[in-house]
Amino acid sequence: MTLSQRSAVQSERAAEVYRTAAEIILEKGYNATSVSDIAQALGITKAGLYHYIHGKTQLLFDIMQYGLNELDREVAQPAMKIADPEARLRFMIEMHARIVTRGHGAVTILVDEARALTPAQNRKVTRKKREYFDFLRDTLKELKDAGKLRNVNLTVATFSLLGMINWLSRWYRAEGSLNEKNVGEAIVDIALNGLTRPASRGSRSLRAI
Amino acid sequence: MTLSQRSAVQSERAAEVYRTAAEIILEKGYNATSVSDIAQALGITKAGLYHYIHGKTQLLFDIMQYGLNELDREVAQPAMKIADPEARLRFMIEMHARIVTRGHGAVTILVDEARALTPAQNRKVTRKKREYFDFLRDTLKELKDAGKLRNVNLTVATFSLLGMINWLSRWYRAEGSLNEKNVGEAIVDIALNGLTRPASRGSRSLRAI
Repeated sequence: MTLSQRSAVQSERAAEVYRTAAEIILEKGYNATSVSDIAQALGITKAGLYHYIHGKTQLLFDIMQYGLNELDREVAQPAMKIADPEARLRFMIEMHARIVTRGHGAVTILVDEARALTPAQNRKVTRKKREYFDFLRDTLKELKDAGKLRNVNLTVATFSLLGMINWLSRWYRAEGSLNEKNVGEAIVDIALNGLTRPASRGSRSLRAI
Repeated sequence: MTLSQRSAVQSERAAEVYRTAAEIILEKGYNATSVSDIAQALGITKAGLYHYIHGKTQLLFDIMQYGLNELDREVAQPAMKIADPEARLRFMIEMHARIVTRGHGAVTILVDEARALTPAQNRKVTRKKREYFDFLRDTLKELKDAGKLRNVNLTVATFSLLGMINWLSRWYRAEGSLNEKNVGEAIVDIALNGLTRPASRGSRSLRAI
């Protein structure tokens, strides 16, 4: 294995650890979940598990950090390289939706349950969420300044987008009749039509009208 | 007081009980919340509180029933009397959003945390949610059959609407710069433009383009 292959395997393993931990916490509740439960579900030793997590007290925070870092790495960072705000918005909605559906939702749900965090952890999580929110809102602001957005309140519009995407964690099941791609494209389509002026839309969404 | 005035006071009191209980549970967690905590927050005796709830074990279920009954009484029942599917959709989104913003979100959040329910309670809650979902989806189906809906997947569209509305519980604060009316209308506007064909929209949303 090359170094980058090994790193990909490592990061896929980390993803599995956090997703499994999130699912067990959602099922049993945080208090009733032990580190042993998670190790057992993954078929690894507790020592092996401690390679990824820092123990029970920091477990929720580790899972949230994982979820928010994933969002930063796979959505925000690549999106910053897209100059056109409409193409950027489309990319962000589709990629963000894909992360939620791919992760079976458990990580997404936990990211919004910040109650068990310490104040310092909560501040960190809130700051990261805020950065992402602001970036998405700024993208809508750019569209508005370019005359491409309908007359919508930017804050309501940004939260509405996040609501549509995050809600996937509560209903989307991979074994159902809809696949990740269908769902992501359908949400892009509804959101773009809900927010932008018809005349300014690119060919992809015009075809859908 | 007339009988109907007394009944209105009673139901406003019940609403306060369930909203307060939901807020305390969200803040402290279900396990750490006692019936005394809730009575104290409301400034009533435990005996007085038992007029509304059936004790700790059924508390979550009582709160969820309250939330789902409110949705049925204030959204679904009146909506059934609206023959035009577009007017009905507009009414449902606006009224549902108003319930979420008015209740400060805590009840809405708990309705989607069904983990602490018994299997029988869970079935009841799931059935009620399903009825509401189906009614909303049927309204979109009527619009589609009348040629008024764009070519969107009905299931994704229905869940996207519910996501936009339910997400209000996570971000809307009554003390902020947006009021309930602004927010409800903005969501109706985004949703209607996201889902319906431009030519078929009524005058209210045409003005917003």
